[in-house]
Amino acid sequence: MPETADLSAGSEGAAEPPAPDAPDAAGESSALAEPAYRQAVVDLLAVIAYGEITAFERLVEDARLAPTLADTVELATMACVEFDRVHGLHGRIRELGGDPFAAMEPFKESIATFHAHTAPADWYEGLVKAYVGDGLASDFHREIAAYLDPATRDVVVATLEGTDHSQFVVDRVRAGIAEDPRLGGRLALWGRRLMGEALIQAQRVAADRDALTALLTGGVDRPGLDLVALGRMFTRLTERHAARMADLGLEA
Amino acid sequence: MPETADLSAGSEGAAEPPAPDAPDAAGESSALAEPAYRQAVVDLLAVIAYGEITAFERLVEDARLAPTLADTVELATMACVEFDRVHGLHGRIRELGGDPFAAMEPFKESIATFHAHTAPADWYEGLVKAYVGDGLASDFHREIAAYLDPATRDVVVATLEGTDHSQFVVDRVRAGIAEDPRLGGRLALWGRRLMGEALIQAQRVAADRDALTALLTGGVDRPGLDLVALGRMFTRLTERHAARMADLGLEA
Repeated sequence: MPETADLSAGSEGAAEPPAPDAPDAAGESSALAEPAYRQAVVDLLAVIAYGEITAFERLVEDARLAPTLADTVELATMACVEFDRVHGLHGRIRELGGDPFAAMEPFKESIATFHAHTAPADWYEGLVKAYVGDGLASDFHREIAAYLDPATRDVVVATLEGTDHSQFVVDRVRAGIAEDPRLGGRLALWGRRLMGEALIQAQRVAADRDALTALLTGGVDRPGLDLVALGRMFTRLTERHAARMADLGLEA
Repeated sequence: MPETADLSAGSEGAAEPPAPDAPDAAGESSALAEPAYRQAVVDLLAVIAYGEITAFERLVEDARLAPTLADTVELATMACVEFDRVHGLHGRIRELGGDPFAAMEPFKESIATFHAHTAPADWYEGLVKAYVGDGLASDFHREIAAYLDPATRDVVVATLEGTDHSQFVVDRVRAGIAEDPRLGGRLALWGRRLMGEALIQAQRVAADRDALTALLTGGVDRPGLDLVALGRMFTRLTERHAARMADLGLEA
């Protein structure tokens, strides 16, 4: 798995093409003068922000399923870390002349459908969703950061930071499986369903939002991903997902 | 209202007696060597922390009643500010040799009863509860900070800081009343009910937790509040509550 090794080497290890980063007089990248690029960036920031808002709401709701108050506090702490990222993303949308709330509107339905199809039935399903969902989102942000102008890239990379509470999830899920081995089989299926639903909704967003897709496939003066590179990106995302499932003691 | 003037002059303006603050070899106040004082401080930190946790959960739940996504984000931001304070309070309980989760246990019932009796029926009741509840809690923390050893006082005073989002609440509530004047009458009654329920539960906690009550009434070598001073403290809390209701355009 050479790609996985590359990825884990740095937060932007997945970058293949150079990013559009020649700054203009205002210190902004010249790519931002291109309306399609600008629209794509606003779309991207908006879908990430709305994803964080709903992840926050779901985490707080799932925290109610926690067996102890200490577990509730851990999950609520994770939720607030997610939520805190929203402000930076909204700030960048405003800098680009967009309205964050109008920009998030087109993504509401896809994200609501994702959550409706992946409502955790219990505490463990909630934990796995938090771990796998946050991990998958972070990997995607890391991949896409390479295609962004420097100022936007910094905002997106900032969403990858924050206290890492994932050890808590790993410990709880592994302890649960040790106590009841059948749980492992159920959670492995659950992890596959989460990945499947995420891909279905991602494809739907890509099909609906041409500008966003064009960001990945490049522009006249911007290099993008060809089909081979896109395939490699999906391979990396899938491998990282499998590695996370293994962390939890689950087959991918 | 000379007391109100004193109060608004500084974050600890309500202090009458000197706090127990002679540090020992470890830099901790000698008051902490007294088991009853130590227990009282752990109780106090625990009840504040549990209050913040439940306030966080209620705010996030009430945020679902928000008419717009922008309002939801404002309320969720307020909720995370509340929640963030929990970590400092728990840290201090651990420094004093306590277990934060065991320490919070005795307060669960009173706080759950408070919330059960004050479940907002709509968005506006949720806003008023957030504003009035957070304000009342902050005033109480400010009052009681004067009776604490310096290290604990710093932790309690830190809970009074954070982004102030109350202007958002004032704007929304005043706009709502301007649109429907009957709302003002209903919310005025609601504010009285919130204050009444808070007092009932506070009294219950005071009756159940002797050490906590002793913190306010003093110890062998620590000055405390006599009945006159206690009465003045309640007057100040009530006056500040009335001022907050007036901010919202409501009669207290």
